[in-house]
Amino acid sequence: MIDLNADLGEGFGRWRLTDDEQLLSVVTSANVACGFHAGDPPTMRRVCELAAERGVRIGAQVSYRDLAGFGRRAMDLPPDELTAEVAYQIGALEVFARAAGSRVSYVKPHGALYNRAVHDEEQAKAVIDGVLLAGTGLPVLGLPGSRLLALAEAAGLPAVPEAFADRAYTEEATLVPRGQDGALVTDPEAVVARSVTLARTGVVASRAGTPLAVRARSLCVHGDTPGAVDLARRVRERLEASGVRVEAFT
Amino acid sequence: MIDLNADLGEGFGRWRLTDDEQLLSVVTSANVACGFHAGDPPTMRRVCELAAERGVRIGAQVSYRDLAGFGRRAMDLPPDELTAEVAYQIGALEVFARAAGSRVSYVKPHGALYNRAVHDEEQAKAVIDGVLLAGTGLPVLGLPGSRLLALAEAAGLPAVPEAFADRAYTEEATLVPRGQDGALVTDPEAVVARSVTLARTGVVASRAGTPLAVRARSLCVHGDTPGAVDLARRVRERLEASGVRVEAFT
Amino acid sequence: MIDLNADLGEGFGRWRLTDDEQLLSVVTSANVACGFHAGDPPTMRRVCELAAERGVRIGAQVSYRDLAGFGRRAMDLPPDELTAEVAYQIGALEVFARAAGSRVSYVKPHGALYNRAVHDEEQAKAVIDGVLLAGTGLPVLGLPGSRLLALAEAAGLPAVPEAFADRAYTEEATLVPRGQDGALVTDPEAVVARSVTLARTGVVASRAGTPLAVRARSLCVHGDTPGAVDLARRVRERLEASGVRVEAFT
Amino acid sequence: MIDLNADLGEGFGRWRLTDDEQLLSVVTSANVACGFHAGDPPTMRRVCELAAERGVRIGAQVSYRDLAGFGRRAMDLPPDELTAEVAYQIGALEVFARAAGSRVSYVKPHGALYNRAVHDEEQAKAVIDGVLLAGTGLPVLGLPGSRLLALAEAAGLPAVPEAFADRAYTEEATLVPRGQDGALVTDPEAVVARSVTLARTGVVASRAGTPLAVRARSLCVHGDTPGAVDLARRVRERLEASGVRVEAFT
Repeated sequence: MIDLNADLGEGFGRWRLTDDEQLLSVVTSANVACGFHAGDPPTMRRVCELAAERGVRIGAQVSYRDLAGFGRRAMDLPPDELTAEVAYQIGALEVFARAAGSRVSYVKPHGALYNRAVHDEEQAKAVIDGVLLAGTGLPVLGLPGSRLLALAEAAGLPAVPEAFADRAYTEEATLVPRGQDGALVTDPEAVVARSVTLARTGVVASRAGTPLAVRARSLCVHGDTPGAVDLARRVRERLEASGVRVEAFT
Repeated sequence: MIDLNADLGEGFGRWRLTDDEQLLSVVTSANVACGFHAGDPPTMRRVCELAAERGVRIGAQVSYRDLAGFGRRAMDLPPDELTAEVAYQIGALEVFARAAGSRVSYVKPHGALYNRAVHDEEQAKAVIDGVLLAGTGLPVLGLPGSRLLALAEAAGLPAVPEAFADRAYTEEATLVPRGQDGALVTDPEAVVARSVTLARTGVVASRAGTPLAVRARSLCVHGDTPGAVDLARRVRERLEASGVRVEAFT
Repeated sequence: MIDLNADLGEGFGRWRLTDDEQLLSVVTSANVACGFHAGDPPTMRRVCELAAERGVRIGAQVSYRDLAGFGRRAMDLPPDELTAEVAYQIGALEVFARAAGSRVSYVKPHGALYNRAVHDEEQAKAVIDGVLLAGTGLPVLGLPGSRLLALAEAAGLPAVPEAFADRAYTEEATLVPRGQDGALVTDPEAVVARSVTLARTGVVASRAGTPLAVRARSLCVHGDTPGAVDLARRVRERLEASGVRVEAFT
Repeated sequence: MIDLNADLGEGFGRWRLTDDEQLLSVVTSANVACGFHAGDPPTMRRVCELAAERGVRIGAQVSYRDLAGFGRRAMDLPPDELTAEVAYQIGALEVFARAAGSRVSYVKPHGALYNRAVHDEEQAKAVIDGVLLAGTGLPVLGLPGSRLLALAEAAGLPAVPEAFADRAYTEEATLVPRGQDGALVTDPEAVVARSVTLARTGVVASRAGTPLAVRARSLCVHGDTPGAVDLARRVRERLEASGVRVEAFT
């Protein structure tokens, strides 16, 4: 049993990035942009409506306040500011999730905040405090072994580890940073095969070929490149053909 | 019996505008900026905490997305965008109100949106739709006779009329626009006297001296000019000394 | 002899809208977004470099400050603010134009500001004042008969009238607003034919079929829809095949 | 001979921070906010006009794009983005400086960018590249010993070292970070005395009392706290009374 999550609603105003309509027919969990790195209110509303119709779980993809950098630039933010910004974003999304007859069901940090919360105790704690401030005991989606998930658990929040079939892993089971050579697995068939192995055995090969144990309750698929939706669909089909049940984690 | 409302939390980041701490010891309803014309998340949190401690009602002061213009520049916004932006702001504030043990108790449009919603059917309707989308049947605070209040009532939302003791009124009982001569009543004693008359008799003199019937359940006081907090405090004291109970409207 | 202009650099951060590279091999004048409705600094730099390489004129496409609305929402801006914002945008673009060995050669308002400057004396004047403040006596590109062009001329600035082959015209030779039926001419062959007629005879058929005299020194082509670049290329080829010289207006 | 510089124009829209009018009667160099951490176009225009009238030099105070954090939060920005953003800000200010009959005469990074450019080679280089891109060989104002000034010199730009009379210094002649105890010298008389010693002897006492040689061509005074303008005025008066000529550095 595995969950498929993807980033959605990552346009802003006139700009679009992901094919939300198509992706929502593939994934079981939608990480919805909340306006800080992307995501305007009408888009948030529409994505929530579509997700609710199709039984896809709605998650708050919280980010640094950085439209110009799409939330991909790490920021040294005082913890109390980050905490309040995380709560703000969750609350703003909740209104659209509820209006669509659903609820915000989890929180996943975006971009540079996601990466920073792997190792940075202070910022990881600030994110968890934001989730707690929002008050609904939401599960937190993140990298296995991250400070984020450790602190979520310590705070009594469900910690949901995820894996990436299209990203290369180091020997330490962290992601090879985007800038580096070979950071992305670009062969579609390899992505599909890695997805199935991950879901069935909890193992993924490191960049050097070492098998790594990566316990993951969710697989992250991407929707912002040409062909991405087709690839996500193939991943889902192959998972199901391999006997893996694709289902939201909550 | 009268409510006193004021705009609060109208700073942004490094900038401050109102003395929130002091104002919250005077008013019974706090119109909290929600991030679109002013109001960063840490400030929203702090104002909600202070308001909750002192038993002051929390209202969402929703605005056009316009930090550079402080929400004072009318914008031609498609109704569905305005509706979603209103709901977004209410949801974002709700998270801090709840965390403080309170709730968002009403909605009041800010600045140019407030003025536009007096006459502009489409925008007034879009604001009401945003309140309905937020789903909690919140009261709407506005100008007596405005389209905003008429549409609130038509939608089954409590419509709360307010008056301004420090603004001049035309013969039609609308506010003299800020740019015009004599738009503001600057003599503190006059403001205090007008407040008492408004609260006790529902009458205010127009610019030309005609007595106007202005049914108001709330008086708006201001906190963004030197001496404003002192004046607000005098208004409250004189109201109470005149036998008027100062109390939140809900 | 006719100029071809198009809007370029209309991405922001992670988002892209137009195929700048391709369009710059078709047009003679590039309306470059300056950061207020679109256009981040690295994109502005790159577009200026490409334009300079290819001998395409660089124009400042100035806009309301409105990323969320792509500058398509009219705003009631005090004239002195608008004037300063126009000058700010011109100055910011000038730095990249010069660095690329070129100069900002003209100014064209974008979106809602373009439309408003057709009739709104105050805002048209504020735009012209911004151009004058920038101090280099730049030509202004706009709709024939607009207040904008009349005030440009009155201020001693070259006024450059433009026409739209892919937009329907009213009987008064203004553009049919985007929202209305038939506002866009969608048949590529019709667009090409209208372009040639416009360039050769200065005449375009109104929506009702009446021939209108539209003196135009430039034709605006679009690049933000699928097939738009191909269409622009066909327009250019057909103009040249018809003996029209395609050349920048300055 | 010493220059006095201060941050000016650090409001945004409705918000004000510094008493620009007063400060401009004290300093010889004005670090003008360019819109990224503060500074709207009308304010930039007004400050440039006042500075030009009074013969105060205009400098571009360039910053990360961070209104919410007032540019005080370090950001991991790709160098080419930072370079373009620095050039953009210089260009935008130049238009107002020229319109006022003056010119942008130097560049000083603001807040977190200032601090980061002390040690961070990549970002310091990106700032210098932005100054070079702006193309006018502008002097760069910064901390003595910083990477920023070293790289400015290496690029052939005048490097102008500055000192802070109201900030404590470590034994290594760097500033004690704002968060730490004793980071600010709060006794006005001490600030005045340190200013005179710095200007006359190039020596300042470290936090521990060690005399440090701090060659400085400019002293930075602050204007964003109550009493700050008076203090700045006293610093200037005492400098002049001590025989130090207060004069712009260029």
